[in-house]
Amino acid sequence: MTVRVGVIGTGMIGQDHIRRLTDVVTAATVTAVTDIDRDRAAEVAAPLGAAVLPSGAELIASAEVDAVLVTSWGPTHAEHVLNAIAAGKPVFCEKPLATTAEDCLRIVEAERARGRKLVQVGFMRRYDTGYRQMKKVISSGSVGAPLIVHCAHRNPEVPEAYTSAMAAQDTAVHEIDVLRWLLDDEIVSAQVITPRATGNRFAHLKDPQLMYFETAQGIRIDLEVFVNCRYGYDIQCETVAEEGLVRLPEPAAVGVRTAGSHSTAVLQDWKDRFAEAFDTEFREWIASVASGAEPTGPSAWDGYAATVITDAAVRSLEAGGTVVSVDIKPRPALYGGTA
Amino acid sequence: MTVRVGVIGTGMIGQDHIRRLTDVVTAATVTAVTDIDRDRAAEVAAPLGAAVLPSGAELIASAEVDAVLVTSWGPTHAEHVLNAIAAGKPVFCEKPLATTAEDCLRIVEAERARGRKLVQVGFMRRYDTGYRQMKKVISSGSVGAPLIVHCAHRNPEVPEAYTSAMAAQDTAVHEIDVLRWLLDDEIVSAQVITPRATGNRFAHLKDPQLMYFETAQGIRIDLEVFVNCRYGYDIQCETVAEEGLVRLPEPAAVGVRTAGSHSTAVLQDWKDRFAEAFDTEFREWIASVASGAEPTGPSAWDGYAATVITDAAVRSLEAGGTVVSVDIKPRPALYGGTA
Amino acid sequence: MTVRVGVIGTGMIGQDHIRRLTDVVTAATVTAVTDIDRDRAAEVAAPLGAAVLPSGAELIASAEVDAVLVTSWGPTHAEHVLNAIAAGKPVFCEKPLATTAEDCLRIVEAERARGRKLVQVGFMRRYDTGYRQMKKVISSGSVGAPLIVHCAHRNPEVPEAYTSAMAAQDTAVHEIDVLRWLLDDEIVSAQVITPRATGNRFAHLKDPQLMYFETAQGIRIDLEVFVNCRYGYDIQCETVAEEGLVRLPEPAAVGVRTAGSHSTAVLQDWKDRFAEAFDTEFREWIASVASGAEPTGPSAWDGYAATVITDAAVRSLEAGGTVVSVDIKPRPALYGGTA
Amino acid sequence: MTVRVGVIGTGMIGQDHIRRLTDVVTAATVTAVTDIDRDRAAEVAAPLGAAVLPSGAELIASAEVDAVLVTSWGPTHAEHVLNAIAAGKPVFCEKPLATTAEDCLRIVEAERARGRKLVQVGFMRRYDTGYRQMKKVISSGSVGAPLIVHCAHRNPEVPEAYTSAMAAQDTAVHEIDVLRWLLDDEIVSAQVITPRATGNRFAHLKDPQLMYFETAQGIRIDLEVFVNCRYGYDIQCETVAEEGLVRLPEPAAVGVRTAGSHSTAVLQDWKDRFAEAFDTEFREWIASVASGAEPTGPSAWDGYAATVITDAAVRSLEAGGTVVSVDIKPRPALYGGTA
Repeated sequence: MTVRVGVIGTGMIGQDHIRRLTDVVTAATVTAVTDIDRDRAAEVAAPLGAAVLPSGAELIASAEVDAVLVTSWGPTHAEHVLNAIAAGKPVFCEKPLATTAEDCLRIVEAERARGRKLVQVGFMRRYDTGYRQMKKVISSGSVGAPLIVHCAHRNPEVPEAYTSAMAAQDTAVHEIDVLRWLLDDEIVSAQVITPRATGNRFAHLKDPQLMYFETAQGIRIDLEVFVNCRYGYDIQCETVAEEGLVRLPEPAAVGVRTAGSHSTAVLQDWKDRFAEAFDTEFREWIASVASGAEPTGPSAWDGYAATVITDAAVRSLEAGGTVVSVDIKPRPALYGGTA
Repeated sequence: MTVRVGVIGTGMIGQDHIRRLTDVVTAATVTAVTDIDRDRAAEVAAPLGAAVLPSGAELIASAEVDAVLVTSWGPTHAEHVLNAIAAGKPVFCEKPLATTAEDCLRIVEAERARGRKLVQVGFMRRYDTGYRQMKKVISSGSVGAPLIVHCAHRNPEVPEAYTSAMAAQDTAVHEIDVLRWLLDDEIVSAQVITPRATGNRFAHLKDPQLMYFETAQGIRIDLEVFVNCRYGYDIQCETVAEEGLVRLPEPAAVGVRTAGSHSTAVLQDWKDRFAEAFDTEFREWIASVASGAEPTGPSAWDGYAATVITDAAVRSLEAGGTVVSVDIKPRPALYGGTA
Repeated sequence: MTVRVGVIGTGMIGQDHIRRLTDVVTAATVTAVTDIDRDRAAEVAAPLGAAVLPSGAELIASAEVDAVLVTSWGPTHAEHVLNAIAAGKPVFCEKPLATTAEDCLRIVEAERARGRKLVQVGFMRRYDTGYRQMKKVISSGSVGAPLIVHCAHRNPEVPEAYTSAMAAQDTAVHEIDVLRWLLDDEIVSAQVITPRATGNRFAHLKDPQLMYFETAQGIRIDLEVFVNCRYGYDIQCETVAEEGLVRLPEPAAVGVRTAGSHSTAVLQDWKDRFAEAFDTEFREWIASVASGAEPTGPSAWDGYAATVITDAAVRSLEAGGTVVSVDIKPRPALYGGTA
Repeated sequence: MTVRVGVIGTGMIGQDHIRRLTDVVTAATVTAVTDIDRDRAAEVAAPLGAAVLPSGAELIASAEVDAVLVTSWGPTHAEHVLNAIAAGKPVFCEKPLATTAEDCLRIVEAERARGRKLVQVGFMRRYDTGYRQMKKVISSGSVGAPLIVHCAHRNPEVPEAYTSAMAAQDTAVHEIDVLRWLLDDEIVSAQVITPRATGNRFAHLKDPQLMYFETAQGIRIDLEVFVNCRYGYDIQCETVAEEGLVRLPEPAAVGVRTAGSHSTAVLQDWKDRFAEAFDTEFREWIASVASGAEPTGPSAWDGYAATVITDAAVRSLEAGGTVVSVDIKPRPALYGGTA
């Protein structure tokens, strides 16, 4: 069975996912698109032979659409996801699930009312081979119980539109999701500290930032977010546990010795770093849709938790670095909890 | 356009490529299969909805088949490939192209008569990211002209059926192809030396073997083939050039520190090592077929050259390690030569 | 000229330094020793032909002693160092310089009164090749201004006598000294956080601990101290700067591939990790004494600063993790300051 | 007891060893020197307060000399070493022991006649931490019996005076000695192959060269000698054995990430690469002399074997790459043999 996907939002990320669904994932086809820029939607639809529909609501309602991909502007996510749930259709929503914790909770409540998980949120790190190997090592017990996680998330540069709050909302949110999954634990407090700023940034931006998180079990996470590090895109993660540690691998790259130096290239683009993870993410999502099973990826609950945690981080940043409690509601049974 | 592929030979490797064409390569579909074991063919065909045809000839002739994949027993390759050429259909032939240099030449002559390349041979290393990075570095001129290449090809173990000659024919043949491509040079002599044998082998097998090749430009290649190395599947390649060197990366793997040791896992299976390369190989082959262009991968000529070179290596082994000249005919214009 | 060294304290560390002065440093000889355990002193002195003197005061006064090495019990350090200053003799004092900031200041004042530096404190990290390379890279400006330093200090295990406060006083104190030197900056606040504790420890001990320091320039340092990490002795340091980063090397060790794993041994003993640094430290100290120049290593001021900073860290630990200001007096001119 | 060393030859290497005996090795003192350039000898002697003697013979005879260091021009080595043996004095001779196998044998015979080992030859690799770790791993049996050794010996450049034969005599001789020791085996054949030459060399020089050695047990060694590799001084050694392999470590160096690249510096000077090995070599030699024991380092027999093997390699080179048998006499009992 080929899953017919309707795509809401045909901007850069939407186009990239459409290419993926078309060229990489064999069991999917994009049958309908919509965008606030109708011309762009038409341009994207043409080579696919996909329908161009006037709105997300109509796309979700279309009989030619089995599953919905939401890659529109963040503030519109909640509405589309709620519509998809109402229509009983699987929906993959790029992060964020919604821009406020309240909207995230409305989505969670809608799913609960429906009694079944329909939503997957686009956190791709869980599909990265390195993180999966790390989770396997931790789960095996061979290094004992995790105590501390050291992380770094570095981008070569960001545009002027990138704000200090986005360090948590757009950047750290990937670590927040993957660490909740990796540790099988919940984050209970967040703190953001600003070291001396780099000169290589737009003046309004606090960069780098150091983020500290505590989990329910007392695991401490430190995360350096440095989005103008200049030298490349670099993701580091090391989990220190009772009997040892496990560290994310460097991406494989040829070693070159010349002119007095042994060197390997550092990636420059996050899309190269996580290209395989994105492919796996969509392959697994489409497989779950095709099989009729609930999606196994990041859930609406994970999207809600990530939003509450990034909100706490932003509040800490704005308050000058105080420790802010993360106030996540009790986890409902639908998401493996007891509420 | 979806390329309709007919598959001749539904054994292990045939099934693996069928899975790839079905699940990984979006623009292909398997429409027909054949196998000397008709029951096996039927079993493989069923979930695909593919036709089961009585012979390779009929499969090649089928109107439902745009392109042919040959994954049958080696000695049958030449016949199927020649039939495909006669039918004017693109054909992907797993290595070897043919089991004798004479048969390879017949294929080359058939292609030349047709005036167009239709054949691609299944040497997947050219599609590996590491080798491609290495070629890019060499081609850039940043390390100067290559002088020496050091290689190792190690498997954890081989079954009793693996013979001493297979070290060249089945194992080293991958390095032979990828180095001809990497260096853009031809191999002119081969020599095989047998060090002290490992105790961890069947008694008839000479293992490890050291193979030395010289190219037309005087580049020297040394290749350790060790197919019972026990510790894992390990491919090494280092090109030493006038201004520096470039080395194939280790596969990425999490680092673990525990019990007094820092360690990373070594792969055990060649299918894991080159999984991505196989995917890319088929994606690119199908793309060339779909576009109507000649294939850009290893050609019939490359298949012929590899056979002549492995023959020379086997003769050296049998002669106790003498240097054996490689007698490759002049390269025809169809393959970029002047003959 | 051979420097005649008198050693106060012939316990384990004293004996190790005596061996170093005897077997490794060519320009030194140990001529006198003293210890509260006179038998032990006699035993150590015998093979050296050194005099056994009844007290530190008499040793310092001896005409056979050009320079003094203090390796006695910490609480006695201040008295011996003050005596040496009073006698105008160079004195190398193992850490800590004194057990209280007040005593450290008394030593600083005594040196100032004398108008000349006579004291060197035993912080050996500054003599480690890796840290020296790191300082060279930072000083060269090639990675720009430092912004953040990530450190880890891990020991395989500690005895029951090791207390939670010792994580700062005995363990982190090495990072505190080397980072003040590396960054050429002063630490202005300290904070100690306790993650979930490892089960592999004596119950009274908080282990691991996370220590956060801020410098006058706003550089942020995070230091994981984990003294029962089990797997080995492991020192990590990474300085993140405006244009790049520089990381301390792993100790060189042969790589072994066997049984599915590529591994290198992790050191188990800090004495192995810093053996060369200790040798260089004493070689340079003896050279400075022999030349009549002031010592170039960690000064009394550095010993004072380290004590104030570790005091702040201990107070933070005891207060449950609050940020504690480091109250270091203005730096006197003798130590490169303006006071 | 301080060993009084007399030094024959005060050129660059002589001066370096004098510095080592003076500044690094505590139990030695240089009491006499001689050189064909008497002014140079006087200049070197002055700061040491050493006697300047008119000839090697007189130096060896001097009552102020306990042990002799020969660092004069190669062709003079044999005479000085024979004189030292005649005088019954321990002698450390820089490589080569003698320039001909015949002269080496005369030394061996003189030692045998004396009934005691007095000679140590200056092959320092056996004192390198990495090679010692490798030997330990091999001796432990954890990787099984060695089968193949891959080596590379690369220098950034050599002067015009360096000849093609010196690739074996001066460069490969270090691998020849250390591998005989590492494998506890004897080399029985040598072969030298010349790949395409680098353009970065003086025209008379064949560079790089590939050397192949076979041992009595059938272990095969391949060694790339490339003395104008440009990028740095780089020593590689990997021993492949029945159950795994062990590889020499890279020298420790800080890792730097900047401008799209992760890099570590490659050493440029062999004196930096083996500085510690030289120190250990002399420390252990002086310790053996001081204790009155026979030296444990490379013996006259090892010097003889190295010369026979390099002679064979040079003959292979001159004969255009034929395999040349190594004709070493039976090993006398004095050197652990049965002759």
